[in-house]
Amino acid sequence: MGAIKFSVTYESSNTWARLGELHTPHGVIETPVFMPVGTQAAVKAMSPRDLEEVGAQIILSNTYHLYLRPGHRLVERAGGLHKFAAWNRSILTDSGGFQVFSLAQLRKITEEGVTFRSHLDGSEHFLSPEISMEIQMALGSDIAMAFDECAPYPADYQYTKNSMELTSRWARRCKAAHHREDQALFGIIQGGMYADLRKASADDLVSLDFPGYGIGGLSVGEPKELMYEMLEVVIPRIPKDKPRYLMGVGSPDCLLEAVSRGVDMFDCVLPTRLARHGTVFTKTGPLTVRNAAYSEDFLPLDPGCDCYTCRHFSRAYIRHLLKAGEMLGMHLATLHNLHFLLRLMEKIRESIGQDNLPQFRKAFLEQYYGGRT
Amino acid sequence: MGAIKFSVTYESSNTWARLGELHTPHGVIETPVFMPVGTQAAVKAMSPRDLEEVGAQIILSNTYHLYLRPGHRLVERAGGLHKFAAWNRSILTDSGGFQVFSLAQLRKITEEGVTFRSHLDGSEHFLSPEISMEIQMALGSDIAMAFDECAPYPADYQYTKNSMELTSRWARRCKAAHHREDQALFGIIQGGMYADLRKASADDLVSLDFPGYGIGGLSVGEPKELMYEMLEVVIPRIPKDKPRYLMGVGSPDCLLEAVSRGVDMFDCVLPTRLARHGTVFTKTGPLTVRNAAYSEDFLPLDPGCDCYTCRHFSRAYIRHLLKAGEMLGMHLATLHNLHFLLRLMEKIRESIGQDNLPQFRKAFLEQYYGGRT
Repeated sequence: MGAIKFSVTYESSNTWARLGELHTPHGVIETPVFMPVGTQAAVKAMSPRDLEEVGAQIILSNTYHLYLRPGHRLVERAGGLHKFAAWNRSILTDSGGFQVFSLAQLRKITEEGVTFRSHLDGSEHFLSPEISMEIQMALGSDIAMAFDECAPYPADYQYTKNSMELTSRWARRCKAAHHREDQALFGIIQGGMYADLRKASADDLVSLDFPGYGIGGLSVGEPKELMYEMLEVVIPRIPKDKPRYLMGVGSPDCLLEAVSRGVDMFDCVLPTRLARHGTVFTKTGPLTVRNAAYSEDFLPLDPGCDCYTCRHFSRAYIRHLLKAGEMLGMHLATLHNLHFLLRLMEKIRESIGQDNLPQFRKAFLEQYYGGRT
Repeated sequence: MGAIKFSVTYESSNTWARLGELHTPHGVIETPVFMPVGTQAAVKAMSPRDLEEVGAQIILSNTYHLYLRPGHRLVERAGGLHKFAAWNRSILTDSGGFQVFSLAQLRKITEEGVTFRSHLDGSEHFLSPEISMEIQMALGSDIAMAFDECAPYPADYQYTKNSMELTSRWARRCKAAHHREDQALFGIIQGGMYADLRKASADDLVSLDFPGYGIGGLSVGEPKELMYEMLEVVIPRIPKDKPRYLMGVGSPDCLLEAVSRGVDMFDCVLPTRLARHGTVFTKTGPLTVRNAAYSEDFLPLDPGCDCYTCRHFSRAYIRHLLKAGEMLGMHLATLHNLHFLLRLMEKIRESIGQDNLPQFRKAFLEQYYGGRT
C-alpha cells in the first residue's frame, strides 16, 4: 500500500480518455484534473477559500521557491505545507528541477546534481536527487516529483539522450532516498522530441514501478502537434492503473487534446498569470479586458458564467481596477480564469462519462476559436 | 424629507457619546460608525463580500480619484457607484477638496475654485463647489460632502480665518448647486486650531441647516490633545439630531476619545494602509508582522480574534507572503485590521448602551498601550 491509490472508474470508448479517482491522504481527486499553481505556498491573488469555491481539488507548489524562501525546515516546523498555507486538500510539489533550469543562474550540472545561484540574492546552492527528496519530504506534500533534468528546446539528439539517461539515474536515486510513507513519489519521463528516447525513458521509469508518472519537457516551445505526437508515443507505455501527469500544460485546447490522449493530471500558471496581465477566458476565446475597448463595456467577463466575478462585476469595472493598480482587479480576474478552467475540466469529465468527448471537444473549440486556430 | 434620516437612540449618561441610526437609501447604519476607505471605487485588497463579512456598513470613496479615473460620467453610465463597484450598502463620497490640497500639484485657489494638475499625468483640471456637486451627484453616493479648503497645519490665524470664510461661502454654493434627492449633502466645519474660528464656522454652517456635519482639518499633524479640544468646542454647537463626522480619524485611541466627545462617524486609510505595510492591530497594540522576529511565530496575528485570517493563518505565514510579495499577505492583513477596527466600534456601541464607555475605554487603552502612550 502506498500513500495514494488510483483507480480508473471509466474508460472512454472513442478516445484514450478515462475517468479516475486519485485517493491521497487529503482526499479524493476526480481525474482528469487541473492543478492551480501556488508557487510560493499561495496561488497568486487567491485565498484557500477562494480556491475551494472555484473547485480546486489539488494545487501544485514549487520546491525551488519554498526551499529558498521561507525554507523547507521552517515549513516543516510550521507543521508542513498544508498547515502552513491552511490548505486542507491535496498538494503536489515539483522537484525544483524545472526552476533551477529556467530561473536560477550560473547553473552547473554534474552527475551528482546541480549547482546554481538563487534568482533572489545570487547565493550559491546545490540540488540533487537526495536533497530534492529531503526538501519535499519536509514540505509534506501528498505527491512529490523525482528530480529531473528538463532539456531545453530545441536540443540535439545526443544532448537529449544524455539528459534523459541522467534523469533515469537520478530517478533511481530519488526512489532510494524517498521514505515518507504518506507521500507518493512520481517519476518523470523525459526524452525531448525524439520518439525513441521517449520510449526508452518511459520503459525505464515504468520498470522502477512508480505510483504515477509525470511527462516532462513538453509545452516548452515546440509545435502543439509535436507535443501530441510525443504523448501518443509515451501514454501507451505507462500502465493503465497509474496516473499520467502532463507537466506545465493549461490552455483549453491542449487540455482537451491531452485528455483525449489519456492524460489524467495537469498544472500550469497560464490561467493565473493571464488574469494578472488582464486577459480572461471566455466561451468565445480569450479577452484582453485591460484594453481600452472594454472601458465602457458593462457586460460580465464571460456572460452566462456563474463565478463570483461574473455574477457581480463588469468588464468596465475590472478594467478600471487593473488600470488603477487595484489588487481587487487581479483577484477577480484570477478567480474567473480558475473557475473557467476548472469548470472546463468538470465538463470534460462529464463528457467522458457520456462517451461524447470528441463532440464536446469539437463544439468547445469551434466556439472558443471561432474559426481561428 | 431628505435623503437620510438620523435618530439618536441612546444618550450616554457619563460621556457625550450617543447611539444612533442613520437611514440612507441603502440601509440603516448603526452609529458610531467607522467607514473603510475605497479610494478608487474599491477598498484596497478587499472585495465587497469581504467587506460585508467584516461588518462594514458604509464605505467612503474619493471624488478626486474617481473624477480623474475612470471619470464620473463613466460611473454614471455604469448605473452609479454602487452598481459599478457592486457595493449595495451605503457610500459617502468626499468632496475632492482634501486630495486637491494633498495630492495634486501646482494648485491655484481663487474665489471661484481650484485649478490643479493631476497627480497621474500632470493634466490641468478645475474643481469648484458646483463641479464637486456635479461629480458627486453623478457618482450617486448616499452622502456627498461640501467642497472645502482644508488649511495646512500649522497655519497662521489670518490664513485660517480667510480659508474658513471661503469654505463657508463655498458651502452656500454647494447647497445651491446640489439637487439630488436621494443623496444627502453634509457641510464641513473648518477653522484650524483656533477655537473662535471653529465656533464661527460651526455656527455659520449650522445656520445653513445641513442634514449632517463633517469636522475637517483635524488629525493633520497637531497634538491629539489639541484635536480633542477642538472637538469640545465644535460638538456642542451642532444640533443633537444631526450626525457628526470626524474626517480622517481611525486610530483606536482617537476613535475612543472622539466617540466620548460625541462623534458619530469616522473614516481613515490607517487600518488598510498599515496592513499593506505589514503592521496589524492586536489587543496588546500594533504588531509589525513583517519583522524578522515573527518569521517562526506560529500564533495568529491576534490570538483570540475570530476573523478569517486569525482562524486559519499564522504570523509566520503572513510574514512569508508579505516578504515574498504575494498579494494574499496584504489581503489577509487588511481583512484582519478592518475586522479589528469594526469590532472595536461594535464594542464601543455596546458599552455606550450599557453606560460603561469610560470603563471600556480605560481597559482597552491600558491593554493596547500596556503602559505606553
